Amino acid sequence: MRYVLIISTLFLLTSLPAWAQKDMKATVIAANQAFMDAYAKGAVGMDSFYTTDALLMSPNSEAIQGNVAIGKFYKYVFDSGIKRMKLEAIEAEQQGNVLIERGRYTAYGANDTQLDTGKYIAIWKQENGSWKLYRDINNTSLPPH
Amino acid sequence: MRYVLIISTLFLLTSLPAWAQKDMKATVIAANQAFMDAYAKGAVGMDSFYTTDALLMSPNSEAIQGNVAIGKFYKYVFDSGIKRMKLEAIEAEQQGNVLIERGRYTAYGANDTQLDTGKYIAIWKQENGSWKLYRDINNTSLPPH
Repeated sequence: MRYVLIISTLFLLTSLPAWAQKDMKATVIAANQAFMDAYAKGAVGMDSFYTTDALLMSPNSEAIQGNVAIGKFYKYVFDSGIKRMKLEAIEAEQQGNVLIERGRYTAYGANDTQLDTGKYIAIWKQENGSWKLYRDINNTSLPPH
Repeated sequence: MRYVLIISTLFLLTSLPAWAQKDMKATVIAANQAFMDAYAKGAVGMDSFYTTDALLMSPNSEAIQGNVAIGKFYKYVFDSGIKRMKLEAIEAEQQGNVLIERGRYTAYGANDTQLDTGKYIAIWKQENGSWKLYRDINNTSLPPH
């Protein structure tokens, strides 16, 4: 019977993080800060923020698949004129194996001119012990131009 | 000790649906079919597919908050010329209390002319025993026009 107690305790401990609906805003805010810093420094190594099987679902194209292609896309976006990205997490909770984040982005050009602002949903998953972006979709909140 | 066994069994049974990462594509496909049917019939009662605290994050505006406002929005979209919506679930899994769906949409006008196609992420939650849309974001895959 001692084993039942041990097994049930182990089950409780291992299943708790997935079972509980947990506020993970602090984790997401820290990860977003690292993302913004790396982007502002030239958008080099942005692939490290995404899982190998990630999908970046940006407007006006099919989804970009995989962290390598996504990294190249951010470099292209930076070189095309978006010099800084601001990400603001509004909510972030853990559900099962994932974090679900909803937030607002703002994109800035040279001299900190605001170029765009909009909203996003990001699904984060753990890969090699770190939370990485697994699904990432956004759209503008500005009227059509 | 008998109680430990009963309690651990109860815990296992009640936590399993949330703990397991479960393919829910069939559930989502059925719900999407009901959504498409209601939309094609004039987009009346679309509020019933969304939770009271839902957010519809459509492009070119701030998020629309709550099922009532979202219902009115769909009626407006229908009257403005989008007569049919096709939703195709690509993946749908349960994580914790939510279903996460990724899919492709196509919008049709009069005479089934294709007006737009794009991608979406939908987060579903249970409300009064039914799965309803809680967070819903989409963007076009067509080039800017």
